[in-house]
Amino acid sequence: RIMRPDDANIAGNVHGGTILKMIEEAGAIISTRHCNSQAGEPCVAALARVERTDFLSPMCIGEVANVSAEITYTSRHSVEVQVNVMSENILTGAKKVTNKATLWYVPLSLKNVNKVLEVPPIQYARKEQEDEGKKRYEEQKLDRLETKQRNGDVILPIINPEPHTVGYSQSSLIHLVGPSDCTLLGFVHGGVTMKLMDEVAGIVAARHCKTNIVTASVDAINFHEKIKKGCVITVSGRMTFTSNKSMEIEVFVDADPFVDEPRERYRAVSAFFTYVSLSKEGKPLPVPELLTETEDEKRRFEEGKGRYLQTKAKRQAQMQQAAQ
Amino acid sequence: RIMRPDDANIAGNVHGGTILKMIEEAGAIISTRHCNSQAGEPCVAALARVERTDFLSPMCIGEVANVSAEITYTSRHSVEVQVNVMSENILTGAKKVTNKATLWYVPLSLKNVNKVLEVPPIQYARKEQEDEGKKRYEEQKLDRLETKQRNGDVILPIINPEPHTVGYSQSSLIHLVGPSDCTLLGFVHGGVTMKLMDEVAGIVAARHCKTNIVTASVDAINFHEKIKKGCVITVSGRMTFTSNKSMEIEVFVDADPFVDEPRERYRAVSAFFTYVSLSKEGKPLPVPELLTETEDEKRRFEEGKGRYLQTKAKRQAQMQQAAQ
Amino acid sequence: RIMRPDDANIAGNVHGGTILKMIEEAGAIISTRHCNSQAGEPCVAALARVERTDFLSPMCIGEVANVSAEITYTSRHSVEVQVNVMSENILTGAKKVTNKATLWYVPLSLKNVNKVLEVPPIQYARKEQEDEGKKRYEEQKLDRLETKQRNGDVILPIINPEPHTVGYSQSSLIHLVGPSDCTLLGFVHGGVTMKLMDEVAGIVAARHCKTNIVTASVDAINFHEKIKKGCVITVSGRMTFTSNKSMEIEVFVDADPFVDEPRERYRAVSAFFTYVSLSKEGKPLPVPELLTETEDEKRRFEEGKGRYLQTKAKRQAQMQQAAQ
Repeated sequence: RIMRPDDANIAGNVHGGTILKMIEEAGAIISTRHCNSQAGEPCVAALARVERTDFLSPMCIGEVANVSAEITYTSRHSVEVQVNVMSENILTGAKKVTNKATLWYVPLSLKNVNKVLEVPPIQYARKEQEDEGKKRYEEQKLDRLETKQRNGDVILPIINPEPHTVGYSQSSLIHLVGPSDCTLLGFVHGGVTMKLMDEVAGIVAARHCKTNIVTASVDAINFHEKIKKGCVITVSGRMTFTSNKSMEIEVFVDADPFVDEPRERYRAVSAFFTYVSLSKEGKPLPVPELLTETEDEKRRFEEGKGRYLQTKAKRQAQMQQAAQ
Repeated sequence: RIMRPDDANIAGNVHGGTILKMIEEAGAIISTRHCNSQAGEPCVAALARVERTDFLSPMCIGEVANVSAEITYTSRHSVEVQVNVMSENILTGAKKVTNKATLWYVPLSLKNVNKVLEVPPIQYARKEQEDEGKKRYEEQKLDRLETKQRNGDVILPIINPEPHTVGYSQSSLIHLVGPSDCTLLGFVHGGVTMKLMDEVAGIVAARHCKTNIVTASVDAINFHEKIKKGCVITVSGRMTFTSNKSMEIEVFVDADPFVDEPRERYRAVSAFFTYVSLSKEGKPLPVPELLTETEDEKRRFEEGKGRYLQTKAKRQAQMQQAAQ
Repeated sequence: RIMRPDDANIAGNVHGGTILKMIEEAGAIISTRHCNSQAGEPCVAALARVERTDFLSPMCIGEVANVSAEITYTSRHSVEVQVNVMSENILTGAKKVTNKATLWYVPLSLKNVNKVLEVPPIQYARKEQEDEGKKRYEEQKLDRLETKQRNGDVILPIINPEPHTVGYSQSSLIHLVGPSDCTLLGFVHGGVTMKLMDEVAGIVAARHCKTNIVTASVDAINFHEKIKKGCVITVSGRMTFTSNKSMEIEVFVDADPFVDEPRERYRAVSAFFTYVSLSKEGKPLPVPELLTETEDEKRRFEEGKGRYLQTKAKRQAQMQQAAQ
């Protein structure tokens, strides 16, 4: 699909959220197709988790996005999908990898949405592939549990905040879930949720540094709770950490099933987004340091620093490995 | 244009904001065409004001909206446009008047957006028409001044509000202004702004009464300040008044030109929206009374009551006149 | 891409216009890529013509559209692209051919939009393929000339028309061309135009027969004139012919470059769409006969009948050939 002005910011860079939405749609198609490949109860694959993904190079208006998806592992009740996005400049023919993402889907019965069905197993070319997939499966299962516990936090409004404090840039939006946001089951597509999350996180980042910003990476996102058509969702973001050239923003999605259900507001998703600030020539700019005031803000800053250093170390290890 | 699922709420009623957006687009086209009808500097007509409008009957998914526009008055620098919207059920052929709106546009030069150009005068069939138009012109001018003074108010966040208080239902959203939101001059279409305002006001109303709600009317809206592409706009709404069967919501639009300009956040638009709550059969339901706590809230409630009684008296006078 | 509620009518059938838009986007990508495949002036492929296409089976909400495109012929200045659309029900795995279309593109220079560049020739597997392509090229060239002459007609409004007359169902819509409607050159994508044409033709058909209708086929469409960003386009449709079970609608697209250019309104595109009326079970229903009143209407009815009989004869010949 050709990238349009509406997919991009004013500097012409395609929003990370648009790319995440395309990735999720590709993943939903391939995993729904797979889960229905054997005669049995019809089902729709629902997004359960997206692994951490890096935006390797920016995509621009007028470029074509090539999205390819492949099933890489199946457990009894879940499907792992690897999605690759290439941007292609059809004028010059140049192609670049934009990002690679790993998504986990779970098949839900069309007749009874609370019933998780069994996934037909795939064939592996080598036994190793299955073992590695199983390892990834166990790891993500553990991580899901952890984020579920962290999930009670709430962003409180702050009145008259100082520049570069957490309160200064924190932002939230509300969105009424319409029919085109939803799957056949009447629940919001994971991709729609991620697009809104990127929109809020981008506004937080731009409010903090007042320059052109782009999504650099998204940490693993777990979709703990489904969101139904007709809900109002509140997406809120606050900055948690800044390094010299990057900003980490935590985003929460809360659902308010206010019309037809007695249920209270609940936390549906949370995630960390990392942004960089770019000059007009597309070079990374230094980022103003985040001013932390409360104990909680200081703690979150340290935790963000931990994640930042861990990612940096991992990347260096990979580069050394690649260089050998 | 056929009304689609995304144009409507889950009960199938088309959003008032969608209708306001169509009305504004029709008005912008006819007034831009008129202002460019004589050789001279090319210009784009920008929305300056929408008069109070009532939504006479709901429109549904699958119906066709017929929008017609006519220029009814021109002053030296402004154009008055009357827009009528009919909903047509193309299966039965039934047509209903949805609403009638009066809009004021001002021609801005394409070369210098701060320059207001002269409007070519229209011909009136009768002298009376010109006089009545002039009277309407003077009245709206006065009203514009008044709202400009009222415009300093801010909605502060409230923590842990009680049900049916003002703080309980107040809501806000942020929106990054994209290219499709804008005119050729790079400023947000008035219709886009009104659609977002209706979205927030609708969420406030639904949070208060937790039922299906529809827009009943919109008070006159003045567009004091233009909003540029790339701005972040914050649209916030709070309930000001409830009668037995209606809710009045005040909506503010603030613009944050944070990327390329040194300018501070400013108030661009404000307006009052009135909603009613509907049962599944489409009948008006009683509305829970708004609980006012602070002095300001009590004052705003009384002011809202004043507007409500005034509108009611006007409508009764019109009905008596029509009956004679 | 998964079909969403907004892509379909209330009976759940995807609009022909949505499919035409996807077809055109695929064609534009492959032909722009091909025309830039040799070092030279960068260019964007603009749609010049779409050959007649039949909608073989309806597509529904929730199905996945698979679009594939292939270059089948190149002349010196034009590219012929064959696009196939398959609908896939990812729950059952069932796939159906939705339609096959042939499109002609012309490469326009990015630097000078009025300059048509040369097309790199493709390699043919067999000499026959080249000869057949050349024959198709000559045929479409002739046809282009003919429609150019026909193009002066205008649809006038009719007041209080009788049911089933031409005036009764004729319809028009206006659309302000926004940035996301346009290519890199700032001209409207052919697919966007076709989607609007299908929308108007669908309203004409529904007004006439007051049932659920679907696009059955589209006659060859020639794009004689480009439409620029910022134009207002008026799309109007009138019924020309009815058979027992089909309706033919003629659609005109006029562009109004009303702001920044001295140019008059001009006819950009015209085409014939054929619709059928469907029962709730998806079976074709009889269509009320079109009542023609004026000499022109009678003449157009006879011409439509000619096209109808010609198409029918062609299809029977093809079926006999296939049966042998």
